[in-house]
Amino acid sequence: MKRLPTGLLPSIALEDSGPIYQQLADWFRRAIAEGRLRPGQRVPSTRALAGELGVSRLPVLSAYELLHAEGYLESFTGAGTCVAAAIPHEAPTRRLPRASTASATPAPRPVAARVAAMASPPQTWLKSQGAFRVGVPALDHFPHAVWSRLLSRHARHVGSEALIYGDTSGHAPLREAIVEYLATVRAVHADTDQLMITSGAQHGLQICAHALLDPGDRAWVEEPGYPGAHQALAAVGAVPVLVPVDADGMDVAAGVRRAPTARLAYVTPSHQFPLGATMSAARRIELLQWAARAGSWIVEDDYDSEYRYGGRPITALQGLDTDARVIYVGTFSKVLFPALRLGYLVVPKDLLPAFRAARDALDTCSPMLPQRALHDFIREGHFARHIRRMRMLYAARRAALQAAIRQHLPDTLHVVGAEAGMQLTARLAPGVDDIALSRRATQAGVSVRPLSPCYRGETRCSGVILGYGNVDEDAIDEGVRRLRGCL
Amino acid sequence: MKRLPTGLLPSIALEDSGPIYQQLADWFRRAIAEGRLRPGQRVPSTRALAGELGVSRLPVLSAYELLHAEGYLESFTGAGTCVAAAIPHEAPTRRLPRASTASATPAPRPVAARVAAMASPPQTWLKSQGAFRVGVPALDHFPHAVWSRLLSRHARHVGSEALIYGDTSGHAPLREAIVEYLATVRAVHADTDQLMITSGAQHGLQICAHALLDPGDRAWVEEPGYPGAHQALAAVGAVPVLVPVDADGMDVAAGVRRAPTARLAYVTPSHQFPLGATMSAARRIELLQWAARAGSWIVEDDYDSEYRYGGRPITALQGLDTDARVIYVGTFSKVLFPALRLGYLVVPKDLLPAFRAARDALDTCSPMLPQRALHDFIREGHFARHIRRMRMLYAARRAALQAAIRQHLPDTLHVVGAEAGMQLTARLAPGVDDIALSRRATQAGVSVRPLSPCYRGETRCSGVILGYGNVDEDAIDEGVRRLRGCL
Repeated sequence: MKRLPTGLLPSIALEDSGPIYQQLADWFRRAIAEGRLRPGQRVPSTRALAGELGVSRLPVLSAYELLHAEGYLESFTGAGTCVAAAIPHEAPTRRLPRASTASATPAPRPVAARVAAMASPPQTWLKSQGAFRVGVPALDHFPHAVWSRLLSRHARHVGSEALIYGDTSGHAPLREAIVEYLATVRAVHADTDQLMITSGAQHGLQICAHALLDPGDRAWVEEPGYPGAHQALAAVGAVPVLVPVDADGMDVAAGVRRAPTARLAYVTPSHQFPLGATMSAARRIELLQWAARAGSWIVEDDYDSEYRYGGRPITALQGLDTDARVIYVGTFSKVLFPALRLGYLVVPKDLLPAFRAARDALDTCSPMLPQRALHDFIREGHFARHIRRMRMLYAARRAALQAAIRQHLPDTLHVVGAEAGMQLTARLAPGVDDIALSRRATQAGVSVRPLSPCYRGETRCSGVILGYGNVDEDAIDEGVRRLRGCL
Repeated sequence: MKRLPTGLLPSIALEDSGPIYQQLADWFRRAIAEGRLRPGQRVPSTRALAGELGVSRLPVLSAYELLHAEGYLESFTGAGTCVAAAIPHEAPTRRLPRASTASATPAPRPVAARVAAMASPPQTWLKSQGAFRVGVPALDHFPHAVWSRLLSRHARHVGSEALIYGDTSGHAPLREAIVEYLATVRAVHADTDQLMITSGAQHGLQICAHALLDPGDRAWVEEPGYPGAHQALAAVGAVPVLVPVDADGMDVAAGVRRAPTARLAYVTPSHQFPLGATMSAARRIELLQWAARAGSWIVEDDYDSEYRYGGRPITALQGLDTDARVIYVGTFSKVLFPALRLGYLVVPKDLLPAFRAARDALDTCSPMLPQRALHDFIREGHFARHIRRMRMLYAARRAALQAAIRQHLPDTLHVVGAEAGMQLTARLAPGVDDIALSRRATQAGVSVRPLSPCYRGETRCSGVILGYGNVDEDAIDEGVRRLRGCL
């Protein structure tokens, strides 16, 4: 192999930061990887390089030693030190960064085709933290001192079973506590082994999608509906079938007409997102009957049913289900706080192996410490107490928001579905651009989530989704007045 | 609609637990959903039902009121109370649980076809917590008091930005601290915005798979290799291409022969899992050149490179990559503890939108509190100090394990790749059933991970993977002697 003269060594620029031997080794590795130094090419002696760079010989010796050990350099008696002959060589133009003027056509940089469908719609409303940020509970009313104490208790006294990879389904005592809570409050029928702790509702939807759906499978989704459900379907390459909703919730007959053999139906029966309807008893039974007949699954997303202020009382679809077709999705993001990232699934028994496999493949298990703290939080009564307090607080805030809308925007905002949760939806007159409104509102310091991105089909209604969970009553009135200024 | 006589009402069995009105409402809902009570069917008067059940009339009134409000019952003057006519009716046999003697063919209960491939191989070795459980660090040497203090600090003093949904990429100050650490220790070149916090390495692999691979896409995996990589590929329906490894790591030329246009290559260049080889400089450059030529991606899983005891020193493949083809996967499971569920990805800049979309679709973001605590843990020097201490501890445990093997099983276990990490792999004579050995070892209180399930092709070598991270020196000798008893 031709030994190139060392004079061709490209110039090395040393920086002030970082050890010199590391900078040198780094420079040589990259020059070799980029093909700027070729296999067999002789490199300067340590003495010559040190002289050229004006540094002591010691770092150069260290760098060469490292590069020898790593296999980038080799030495031959009489030939000095060379780039290892085993290094494969390609013309350096291909190795240059793409931003350079290299003439060769750059190789493609493909990402998954379904990435666009996985992305959430533009979220301008997230740029403001103020009124009426959606999905945020009353953070300053959370009992932080209690929570901190429970965390410390478990962080200090740790057995090894709390530190290693946990059960894929989660901390068993916590699962038991949640099952009891669901049985009492939501009439959900389940054994502890059917409950799987997740890292939030979106994560729960993904476990469902991965366990149940293959690419190309069709799934009913509410139209308008929760964008996260579309994102979950897109992640597994499933195809959403848009099923309209009305005042009784998802129009099951329309779903049957559009896709009678869909593999799955995603519904929010307690409090339809975003229009707020409660699914009627007749529709619930119709949906269960379809699933049992078609051999399909129902994913019941019960994202905020802890807070209910009137209208039809409801129990979970899961409790009505006698053919074990319903997977129930819950979250603690609304009752505790979103950054906790804890939720749960209630899974039919025969689906447990599939759900455990999907969960294990996705991310193994959820962190243990918050599960242990949450267990105590529930068992020591803080959970029930917090829900009771928040229900009163949110009822007052909801009333304040409705009053402010009546006062300041009576003919502009038409409130629908305000019976539950921590948000209400209001329709705007057709033709009002709710995305532009949301953008203007953000500039005015108001967070207004537009309704139209919740539609995926041709017909899109204009409206706003207003969260009142983390907004005190004074700020509610001020927020509605600011919103009026944006209209 | 025919009004059925109320005498046909099936018997109601009240239980001692739970309010009577809830039990009654629950019974009626299910009886209606199952078709045992038909639309239009008259139900007993509250007085008659209370008398029949021997309870006060009050809970019966409450139950009926609830069922009216929910839409299950309706009343007509002169006709009494009936099951709502709007409820859809199907023959009750279809509604019975599948386990019953119903003659109708039960509807199918399909799960995703790829669930089998998503499942991990049987993990008998997880049933013992003792020596030589793989993947567990020295839990009793972790500074729990420090960690607990840092958690408490952030749990008590919380601003709202620490409680709401966080940045999809994670807590910015933590990302900055990790980028600095990686630059110094692993020669990884990245800006802070290229670093994404994950919920562990498996989760990181899944984000890669979802952002980069479509169903049917082919991906190189090491053979033998890390089962989690196969699980991640299966989750997105990608097809693994088995590429053999030798003492220099993945045989890139073999990969090029088998699948020259594979979309991705998954490698563990620092410490091949499970055989322990370090990928040579020549192979590294060959792999980078292939990826740049073929327009493919490289996922570099650097799962335990913090601990290295000799042999070739190495820097990350990512730092050599001049065409931005490498996604670097790291985890804190080995340095801190697995139940923490925190890791990270270093992502080429142009891939960030795809990775953010995949992450948002999968589970939104990681919990905030541990990220804040980990930031302080790194910045206050605990992280570097813990790594230094553990490196010395593990080096001693590794030496003890090698000595015990030399003493007790010199001709049976042939150690390979013990230069890094917290585990070593030893080959067994061909024909030894390592899965059966693992099962026997578990019964003897020893956790021994079999090697053969790491192979997915025809040829499978027999061996054991022995973790020494959480095993003190006395237990190491005892464990090897017990393992000898199982052979």
